[in-house]
Amino acid sequence: MKNQKTKSYSIVRIKDGKKEYLQDEVVEEKSLSIYLNSQKIATLMCTPQDQNYLGLGFLFSEGLITDIKEVRRIDYNALRDTVKVQTKKKKKASRVLLKDETLISGCGKGKSFQKMEDVTFLEDVLINLEFTLSTEQISNLMKEFEIKSSVFKKTGGTHSAALADKDQILLFNEDIGRHNAVDKIIGESLIQKIPLEDKLLISSGRVSSDILLKSWRAKINLILSRSAPTSLAVDLAQRLGITIVGFARGKRMNIYSYPMRIVK
Amino acid sequence: MKNQKTKSYSIVRIKDGKKEYLQDEVVEEKSLSIYLNSQKIATLMCTPQDQNYLGLGFLFSEGLITDIKEVRRIDYNALRDTVKVQTKKKKKASRVLLKDETLISGCGKGKSFQKMEDVTFLEDVLINLEFTLSTEQISNLMKEFEIKSSVFKKTGGTHSAALADKDQILLFNEDIGRHNAVDKIIGESLIQKIPLEDKLLISSGRVSSDILLKSWRAKINLILSRSAPTSLAVDLAQRLGITIVGFARGKRMNIYSYPMRIVK
Repeated sequence: MKNQKTKSYSIVRIKDGKKEYLQDEVVEEKSLSIYLNSQKIATLMCTPQDQNYLGLGFLFSEGLITDIKEVRRIDYNALRDTVKVQTKKKKKASRVLLKDETLISGCGKGKSFQKMEDVTFLEDVLINLEFTLSTEQISNLMKEFEIKSSVFKKTGGTHSAALADKDQILLFNEDIGRHNAVDKIIGESLIQKIPLEDKLLISSGRVSSDILLKSWRAKINLILSRSAPTSLAVDLAQRLGITIVGFARGKRMNIYSYPMRIVK
Repeated sequence: MKNQKTKSYSIVRIKDGKKEYLQDEVVEEKSLSIYLNSQKIATLMCTPQDQNYLGLGFLFSEGLITDIKEVRRIDYNALRDTVKVQTKKKKKASRVLLKDETLISGCGKGKSFQKMEDVTFLEDVLINLEFTLSTEQISNLMKEFEIKSSVFKKTGGTHSAALADKDQILLFNEDIGRHNAVDKIIGESLIQKIPLEDKLLISSGRVSSDILLKSWRAKINLILSRSAPTSLAVDLAQRLGITIVGFARGKRMNIYSYPMRIVK
């Protein structure tokens, strides 16, 4: 469901003391209210594009839906700026969950229902290290990622996210919010029924704890970013068996956790 | 109240195919719960520094406190990661307000209690155009701003915000979230009783609608950013009489609204 992604404005550009009057493209920002059945879960500010992916991805990456099989239908209403996700069985977010949400740190969205306590039990789980990647594959994926980031090139105002296998980008999206971009990718992968265990997430934005927990819920074990991670993201990644590769630019990258997944 | 802003991690750096094992600084991320009297308003993920400014600035820029004179005391508890702001008179955020919050788009935080309807009456208000600035002053302020962004230089993982008059930066802060950085600046200016009508806000991050509304509440009429604005921010700025200068880099800048404040 593609919509308008930029709007044109009359601006004044100043360059070396000279004034110029011109039309410039600015990235569009709109609200989206996400409902689980008849319950309003959140209102996000986002780029109005692929709102159904965003709604579904948000509910999934925040743990309110755990399997696409639960979903009966998804309705996006462009006039009211709502996405309503209906489940087959009655399902409600608990009051406690909604009351206890944490506001996230970063570009994209801002609410998280994920609790640190949820992840502690994970220490008993076997970490799968079979999915590996070479540094050359990473450089190639980052090159493809940059080329695809077209709205950013036009407006300088968006974050990008992608789902990739070892060799190529499978899904790509852009949004004013880095969390939204990731949620759109997760939502689309659910609808397309793409298994995520042997895929990686690429983000233009910083890897904060909320991005890490979203990936963990989606069972993605490797995150590639051109930016920095935060301390809490690295701590969680070390506990949950997720590889964070930060500052992936050209032939250079920093590996913050589980470096054994990056071979050669 | 300064705290640790970065943590050191053992990482693997890959550069031109060569592996290197080293210690690297990563920006710290921690939660902060903000209370208005005994009511929990929000939990943010942020950089653990100047939490009292963040708590106060957040409540003010979201319209839950409208004057520093209302405030009796501010308590930051570093063990529990809470800031409690107590007012002289009993004050409670309404249930409706808390229920209807919007999740914001961008780096920093994620919840906004500001409604678009709140700003409509503003059309009757006289817009003050007395505060003007030259392009040279803007270039100089941006240069000073870049020099001050030290945590960013160390970790690549933070946003910066500053309050400035025409000639120099008065307050400066950094946070993993661009909204948090702005709220810290607003909080500090309240405590230091700095009038904001003749000041400008500088941000390293994008100017989205929530950043614009935070400035508007703080009565700041000019926003300077090295990044892009969103469409909704420009629309609101045009309505509220706020000047947005984006992509302010070196001697270059784009003026998206009220260009008459930028002289020469």
